[in-house]
Amino acid sequence: MAPDPTTLHGGSLLIAWQLTNKRVLIVGGGDVASGRLESALVADANVTLVAPAPLHLLTQELVDLLPDRITWHDREFQDSDLLVDPAEQKYVSMVFTAIDSFPESQRIARLCNDLRIPVNAADIPALCDFYFGSQVRSGPLQVLVSTNGKSPKLANLIRKRIESVIPPETAEAIENVGKLRERIKERAPGVGGQVSKKRMRWMVDLCGKWSMEDLACLDDETMGALVDGGWEKGIVPAPTDVMGEKALQSNGHALNGSAKGEPERRHAGVTPVVAAFVAGALLSGLTVLSRLRR
Amino acid sequence: MAPDPTTLHGGSLLIAWQLTNKRVLIVGGGDVASGRLESALVADANVTLVAPAPLHLLTQELVDLLPDRITWHDREFQDSDLLVDPAEQKYVSMVFTAIDSFPESQRIARLCNDLRIPVNAADIPALCDFYFGSQVRSGPLQVLVSTNGKSPKLANLIRKRIESVIPPETAEAIENVGKLRERIKERAPGVGGQVSKKRMRWMVDLCGKWSMEDLACLDDETMGALVDGGWEKGIVPAPTDVMGEKALQSNGHALNGSAKGEPERRHAGVTPVVAAFVAGALLSGLTVLSRLRR
Repeated sequence: MAPDPTTLHGGSLLIAWQLTNKRVLIVGGGDVASGRLESALVADANVTLVAPAPLHLLTQELVDLLPDRITWHDREFQDSDLLVDPAEQKYVSMVFTAIDSFPESQRIARLCNDLRIPVNAADIPALCDFYFGSQVRSGPLQVLVSTNGKSPKLANLIRKRIESVIPPETAEAIENVGKLRERIKERAPGVGGQVSKKRMRWMVDLCGKWSMEDLACLDDETMGALVDGGWEKGIVPAPTDVMGEKALQSNGHALNGSAKGEPERRHAGVTPVVAAFVAGALLSGLTVLSRLRR
Repeated sequence: MAPDPTTLHGGSLLIAWQLTNKRVLIVGGGDVASGRLESALVADANVTLVAPAPLHLLTQELVDLLPDRITWHDREFQDSDLLVDPAEQKYVSMVFTAIDSFPESQRIARLCNDLRIPVNAADIPALCDFYFGSQVRSGPLQVLVSTNGKSPKLANLIRKRIESVIPPETAEAIENVGKLRERIKERAPGVGGQVSKKRMRWMVDLCGKWSMEDLACLDDETMGALVDGGWEKGIVPAPTDVMGEKALQSNGHALNGSAKGEPERRHAGVTPVVAAFVAGALLSGLTVLSRLRR
């Protein structure tokens, strides 16, 4: 398909930034800072928090809860806070400012810009390397909704709509698929080439054939059965072949429109129709009978 | 609500990175590189592309289409490509590598790490500052789905589900709300404080009260009417008050569960139930009557 130049502008680069074992500096201890703190912790960062007491309630709770991951300095920002290791001139990996002083926030953001430290300065979009948006989190699943600054409220409404169509078993299904990938990598190790392609194809087939709730039902034992009876034979068995009754107990929230998920959704619509038919039949029958007996 | 420590790990930091007027270096000219090139262009970046000919078809089309935004060097990567302006020691803002040579990709990524240039090296997650995920784009709306590396296939299925619940008029609605915000800012300028809060509250009320398709129907004239008859009076009028007939033509795709969208959805489920009740009643009544008459 030829590229459409009209769509090639006006957006942002949406990315999943990695912060595991990295240090994030948060300047500020209020409401906004507490949201930033949670986001950094979710991403496995270690955090240096610089803000004079008192902290926002949630921030204080997080500081008390995770003293190993959060270092709190009860004072105003100092330029040296940007350094993790002054001897090696090693800087923090990322900075969030959320303070009331516009000039100080601007000054910190400019310092970061000069040092190429990624920075988000609350309320100063022009100096931000990146923005946050509305977010959904469900275990390993994360979704970011951005309207590119045009309407935070609509972003929030869209986020709610997205949340409502992600079935609760999705998180478990993703975790299980992750575990299964690791088990198959143990059986058939190697990066790149044919084995890598074969693994990918089998995983894609599995995720296409099994519903979310079937994937969510996998446990250690059934995962083993799936590897032995499926992967080793180069086939993707049906959920019932691997899990028996367990596969039938799932509740029809299939996200992937599998052969199993669809009829159950239809079923959900059929039940009230049948019930109404029976109710109508009973009521009418009884009415006719009672009238005839009078 | 007290923070739940079990959720405070295992994720990424999902962000909307800003690349307007910044330079991105892409090393590689194949299939993966062409996807990266599109993402960079969408985010308004200028791109330096380093790859010996022949380029992937889409990449070549983009290079031909946007010569002002893409500078192509028909050769292998050189370390000096990381510099935008050697005199000022000014570096590119971001680097994507997508080449077959693992050692060279690794070497480039390490150079970037040392210089604190954000980098994504395809297939070398350990050296990446960030990952891409499955993405939805519809005008100003962008959605990123990440399973944190556990299942790209499930991420893709979830993306499709999300696409299917975003009504087509959403992009237009977001654009219009963005324009409306600007118009109100012209009427009542100022950053922070009471006026800023008042603007935000009014926009939130509007987005809560009006459906997506009503917002999508706004044009210059009706936007003026909404500012004069709504904002100036401190009220949010109904869509029909501002747009008359136009507001009634919309088709019930409300994303924000407005009074208009909901009854239509409920109606769709109620009709077969009522029909079944009547059918049941008729059938039962006729059966009883026919038996009694025999």
